[in-house]
Amino acid sequence: MNEKKTDQHADKVVTQLHFAKIGKITPQMQRVAEKEKISPERVRDEIARGRLVIPANIHHTNLDPIGIGDAVTCKINTNIGGSPIRSTAAEELKKLDLALHLGSDAVMDLTVGPYIEEIRKTLIAHSHAPLGTVPIYEAIEMVNAPEDLTADLIFDVIERQARAGVDFMTVHAGLLRAHVPMAVNRLAGIVSRGGSLTAKWMVHHKKENPIYTEFDRLLDICRRHDVTLSLGDGLRPGALADASDEAQFAELKTLGELVKRCVDADVQVMVEGPGHVPFDQIAMNMEMERKWCHEAPFYILGPIVTDIAPGYDHITSAIGATMGAFSGASMLCYVTPREHLGLPNLEDVRQGVVAYKIAAHAADIARKRPGARERDDALSEARANFRWDDMFNLAIDPQRARVMHEESHVDKKDLKSEFCSMCGEKHCAVRMSRSVKEAL
Amino acid sequence: MNEKKTDQHADKVVTQLHFAKIGKITPQMQRVAEKEKISPERVRDEIARGRLVIPANIHHTNLDPIGIGDAVTCKINTNIGGSPIRSTAAEELKKLDLALHLGSDAVMDLTVGPYIEEIRKTLIAHSHAPLGTVPIYEAIEMVNAPEDLTADLIFDVIERQARAGVDFMTVHAGLLRAHVPMAVNRLAGIVSRGGSLTAKWMVHHKKENPIYTEFDRLLDICRRHDVTLSLGDGLRPGALADASDEAQFAELKTLGELVKRCVDADVQVMVEGPGHVPFDQIAMNMEMERKWCHEAPFYILGPIVTDIAPGYDHITSAIGATMGAFSGASMLCYVTPREHLGLPNLEDVRQGVVAYKIAAHAADIARKRPGARERDDALSEARANFRWDDMFNLAIDPQRARVMHEESHVDKKDLKSEFCSMCGEKHCAVRMSRSVKEAL
Repeated sequence: MNEKKTDQHADKVVTQLHFAKIGKITPQMQRVAEKEKISPERVRDEIARGRLVIPANIHHTNLDPIGIGDAVTCKINTNIGGSPIRSTAAEELKKLDLALHLGSDAVMDLTVGPYIEEIRKTLIAHSHAPLGTVPIYEAIEMVNAPEDLTADLIFDVIERQARAGVDFMTVHAGLLRAHVPMAVNRLAGIVSRGGSLTAKWMVHHKKENPIYTEFDRLLDICRRHDVTLSLGDGLRPGALADASDEAQFAELKTLGELVKRCVDADVQVMVEGPGHVPFDQIAMNMEMERKWCHEAPFYILGPIVTDIAPGYDHITSAIGATMGAFSGASMLCYVTPREHLGLPNLEDVRQGVVAYKIAAHAADIARKRPGARERDDALSEARANFRWDDMFNLAIDPQRARVMHEESHVDKKDLKSEFCSMCGEKHCAVRMSRSVKEAL
Repeated sequence: MNEKKTDQHADKVVTQLHFAKIGKITPQMQRVAEKEKISPERVRDEIARGRLVIPANIHHTNLDPIGIGDAVTCKINTNIGGSPIRSTAAEELKKLDLALHLGSDAVMDLTVGPYIEEIRKTLIAHSHAPLGTVPIYEAIEMVNAPEDLTADLIFDVIERQARAGVDFMTVHAGLLRAHVPMAVNRLAGIVSRGGSLTAKWMVHHKKENPIYTEFDRLLDICRRHDVTLSLGDGLRPGALADASDEAQFAELKTLGELVKRCVDADVQVMVEGPGHVPFDQIAMNMEMERKWCHEAPFYILGPIVTDIAPGYDHITSAIGATMGAFSGASMLCYVTPREHLGLPNLEDVRQGVVAYKIAAHAADIARKRPGARERDDALSEARANFRWDDMFNLAIDPQRARVMHEESHVDKKDLKSEFCSMCGEKHCAVRMSRSVKEAL
């Protein structure tokens, strides 16, 4: 009986985790191994242990898969999507193209408002990168108020999104009724959209979180389409004052239990992390996730290391993200300069993506991931030899670097010259340094 | 005889370090204590130990003094100044005003080219913040080639600048002849302007660095005007590949010897640091300075943590600067987005200063400096209660935050509303969180 049930189960399980556990190397694992310059066996074994995920919905046909986990390079995610106040599918598609062009590894469509399905469909069709969503944003559009949400409605949306090819989904399954009182007296309260909706529902109905109580329904959907779960931190701190508090860590502990249930059910899983965290607490936060969440990949938002720089939160958070990735995070969710102020435009997306490419890459270098510094060395060598074009082409954002160089020259004939406007010809240290070498 | 000599010496010594050693609390120490919320005695004792400096040239009459050292908040410096290719005194004055407006603690005039004296004069007259220079940049204007420089010429310039009120000066006194061969085969060679000039001179003349051999002349000038010496790292790495190498640390060790000579001679001194350094090596670099340089304040440039982001080096370096300040640096020299590409314009200065205010403040919070988080908490409290104006006014750059908020609203009547365009009214987590609290 038991044996038969296992077989039936196996028939419809299509996840990378399932195949890894039975020792099979999939084309997706092959591709990740090739991109990361590690062996396919290593990729498979890391997936089997739950330390690596390849978000790859079987219905996302134009996907070029990526690996997220400690054994591979640090990844970045770009949040795009419209809000009821702004944006259209066409505008969001431009953001997608720019993000992918600049090297974003994953994309989340966080659209809220009436155009969710249209925008998502457009994005999946165009994205070779894995695409993630927060299904509760679509569910909430179908009701008048958060308290009208039902488990059936939420799981219907999840099922529909799974069939549409969504590679990973954020669910706030670990936010329990008992956690809410721990969070309401915080300085910034509950700042996660999904988290605050879930809390509102639980408080109104005096019932436990249905995604938690009916977690097996979720696992069943994910198993059949290979949706990677991203366990959201609904109680992530939204101010430095709230960082590393009882609410945050109570939820993290529950997320750890859910990670185990996912891995046991062959469902790929990662865990989401803060938020706003003082610089000295970041390494500790990474350590807590490793300890409680069975080494599931940690996917962090920033963290922002000071609250006083609205307009520059791509910087406050890239600082935290570098420290996070250095201390163990596997994917960094970007933050744009417009965070806390409004919906990002195209220039904000550019600033955010580049800041996070910097953070992820700086951490890869610091963690001595194989070959991480090769591009830096090539660029510095081009710089030391005034090969401007090579330098621009090796840059994360060649276009912006080129424009800034061009703008700052008075005389256009100097553009190919062996100095720049910072010092001018006579004071150029690079030229001087070369002449020292020749004279020595 | 010895006694008489000491007395004579004491007569003309006007440095804060001299007064600290004899137990006197100066008005400058009083002012620093007041701003830092520590006792004047503590300020005096830290200065006496060489762990704190107050750059305060006796001729800089409109100075509002600041303290730089481990016992006080982390400071930032803004480099301004024209190059032969660009800029005028009027343009540089605008940069000064903006930097001070945004909260820069110190300013260096790095002008090279024909207008050095004019620009410096203008800046000192306008700056309430301490002003620094690199005297060799002026000296080099007076000769045809670096090899024509003489010790007399250099010390004449230093003396003149000291009389003009320059509060701190970068001198590359620790770069010795023996260090040059260690640096020439680096990927990026010698990238410091002063360092490459000094190396060129030594190689040409086959002689030791005159600022090293005649260091006592320098000490004598500094003692009479209270110029704080900033011992430059002429061999700072200009690429990740060159970080923490033999050349860099050989010079650092020499700087440590010179620190001791300064402190013994009652001359205030700080040490300059790198540069381009992988994130994982930053804490170690701070430790080496502490170990070899007798805890003199460490004044670091970035460090930049990846070479591949020209156009965004305010970010690559703010990441390193935060880690540096967290691990012990006392002042951070800003880097702008135009680093490696050209002379910064006004917008570049803005981006650079704000990135560094963020880095210094994030480190102050992480080091738990008293009261450091108060402004963050006040801003977050305003944010949680939709007091937009309070939030903007508490921001590092209120103007930019306000503009970004305004731009992203379609409907101007929403500007004072209890949501923003990121989520819209229905999906605003902050609103939802408040209703959870009320319903609980």
